[in-house]
Amino acid sequence: MEENQLNPDVLAVTPSALRQFDHEISADPQIVKLTLGEPDFNVPEHIQIAAIRSIKANQSHYPYYWGIQTLREAASTYYRDKFGYRYSADQIICTVGATEGLSATFKALFHAGDAVLIPTPAYPVYQALAILNHVTPILVDTTETGCVLTPQQVTAAIKSHLEVTIKGVVITDPSNPTGVVYTEQQLADLVPTLRENQLWIISDEIYGELTYGVAHYSLSRWLPDPTIIINGLSKSHAMTGWRIGFVFGPSNVIGQIAKVHQFMVTTPTSIVQYAAVEALTNGQNDAAVMRKVYQKRRDYLKKALTELNMTFVAPMGAFYIFAKIPTAYHQDSFAFARQLARDYHVGVMPGTPFGDPTAIRISYASSDENLRALVAALASLNRAKRVAER
Amino acid sequence: MEENQLNPDVLAVTPSALRQFDHEISADPQIVKLTLGEPDFNVPEHIQIAAIRSIKANQSHYPYYWGIQTLREAASTYYRDKFGYRYSADQIICTVGATEGLSATFKALFHAGDAVLIPTPAYPVYQALAILNHVTPILVDTTETGCVLTPQQVTAAIKSHLEVTIKGVVITDPSNPTGVVYTEQQLADLVPTLRENQLWIISDEIYGELTYGVAHYSLSRWLPDPTIIINGLSKSHAMTGWRIGFVFGPSNVIGQIAKVHQFMVTTPTSIVQYAAVEALTNGQNDAAVMRKVYQKRRDYLKKALTELNMTFVAPMGAFYIFAKIPTAYHQDSFAFARQLARDYHVGVMPGTPFGDPTAIRISYASSDENLRALVAALASLNRAKRVAER
Repeated sequence: MEENQLNPDVLAVTPSALRQFDHEISADPQIVKLTLGEPDFNVPEHIQIAAIRSIKANQSHYPYYWGIQTLREAASTYYRDKFGYRYSADQIICTVGATEGLSATFKALFHAGDAVLIPTPAYPVYQALAILNHVTPILVDTTETGCVLTPQQVTAAIKSHLEVTIKGVVITDPSNPTGVVYTEQQLADLVPTLRENQLWIISDEIYGELTYGVAHYSLSRWLPDPTIIINGLSKSHAMTGWRIGFVFGPSNVIGQIAKVHQFMVTTPTSIVQYAAVEALTNGQNDAAVMRKVYQKRRDYLKKALTELNMTFVAPMGAFYIFAKIPTAYHQDSFAFARQLARDYHVGVMPGTPFGDPTAIRISYASSDENLRALVAALASLNRAKRVAER
Repeated sequence: MEENQLNPDVLAVTPSALRQFDHEISADPQIVKLTLGEPDFNVPEHIQIAAIRSIKANQSHYPYYWGIQTLREAASTYYRDKFGYRYSADQIICTVGATEGLSATFKALFHAGDAVLIPTPAYPVYQALAILNHVTPILVDTTETGCVLTPQQVTAAIKSHLEVTIKGVVITDPSNPTGVVYTEQQLADLVPTLRENQLWIISDEIYGELTYGVAHYSLSRWLPDPTIIINGLSKSHAMTGWRIGFVFGPSNVIGQIAKVHQFMVTTPTSIVQYAAVEALTNGQNDAAVMRKVYQKRRDYLKKALTELNMTFVAPMGAFYIFAKIPTAYHQDSFAFARQLARDYHVGVMPGTPFGDPTAIRISYASSDENLRALVAALASLNRAKRVAER
């Protein structure tokens, strides 16, 4: 049997270039990684203990597919107190991380032939999910507006794509890869345009707890009906590999997403669900420790990169800096990242998969020592360049 | 925003009637359940210990999305030794249970507008996955041939559906809901017809280790190129809620399924992957204990149901008996199952979602005491009926 007998939408998608690149450079045993988007913290001990308790209590049977009731109730309270979400337990589904939440949401909202707005630079999974669902991704470049989507950009994108039905928009706030955090005003400004155009809003708020000196707001406050929130414990509780996320949405939509979710995975791992109850009940401050460390690292990197004449939009959240490759290098992002990996054993993410081939994404969810190694490598590259130019 | 702005394929699917029904009857605190398809055993202790070790070792980061290398290698060896599978580690993906494996496989193989053959009685998730992917499910009734798909049935189904392109077939062996196990000869007989018609074969072998006095064979032995195997540890190691499965397939296909898998879930829970390595390395005999118990229960039920004049196809594997509702009752399967639940506090699955409204599925992955309660209920119903008829 040949590949051409497979689903063309699947053939059209490329595997995540980010994980691919990370996998590629990981072959170097000396590599210092500032690539992947995951905390370098461990799962807090009280959550580990809860998971072990759940294992020993033999909670190994199928939980109800929406997620266990206590977890959905805990999520309802936790996110209400953190960000003002207004969702009861029956408007929340527990998912296999944020990815599964996104995947089920894309499937439930969009039909083959629809289109979706994706402001760039963007996390490349949105585009892949669009393609997999035969939905047209319309990339809206926001670099001119500080990597914040504006109502004018929404209107312009709709006007210049009258050939398709644009059914939704993805907002990642705080942003991966730029670390940009929307202000209350910036979100409020978007509301009339989003409402007028009857767009579904996929609001990816997975980095919501990681903001530095600014608050996180949710579009659901203004637009509860068309907003689907994606969140989870991967970043706030350093539980990436444990895979637990949440989807919040209005009742009529969440039931549809739940069906897709059920036939996609049945339910997330039972013992992780019980551990997540602990995280949301007694782990309100788990992120605070990490936030403090991340902020210190961000400050260090901002200063060091600025001294090296690198430019970037001000990173206020998440744990990334999306920096322009100095023009002197005349290289695309993959070539530049490969050179850094090869010559200096330092791994950063090429910007191309995020929509900017002239940038790199630096994750500071990595040790101070690793950050210093990056800065040293960039400084050394800088010196080498100046020598060569003489 | 209205529901009609959602994906019509998703609106067209109904949530699992099985889980719904189970949820419904679970409201009765006295209910004795012979409904869900999950072992009443606990996760074997050595696997629990491995999971706890993994938690304590902080293996909480993103595993490579195909699954950790050691697990894929362990699966390669384990299933080769058990069933003669011939797949190297790079032809295996680790999934969030068998469900995610099925879901990713359906998506990768079929395009909107294709059709797939589903022999019935069948596990209803296949039909739901077809509908979600805008693929036409063509149900092939096999009750006349002992719930075993025959080449004649395949040919007849293709001939009577010339309006669509039938791209594949689902084989569940051992079968849920009937417990039928295909013989070597029955599979060999299917091979020429499946090959001739260039059908993808989704071979769901999740109950492969649960056969009673007969061997399990895999179609992949004869048809390695078009066969995708779905398997996992839910039944063999009583790990349903832990969510770990595997997809095995030829290299050109498995890479495509891996992409869908990546964008669907990223990867299964890390600590469960490490526990699964233990299951596949030192748990070769974990299913033996359970098999012995299941076989005893099956024998008891077979005898008791026969004495009650109930008929069913001989159950040789899995942990189900799919029994016809005695015609005297004049009831459809939901009404009958509801009556059993209401009047006798015994839960069995209605046959309708499996494709037979005149049958019930009895799961004997339930205690001896529970089985006796069912038999007592059926006997009592029987007596009540005879009294009423006098």
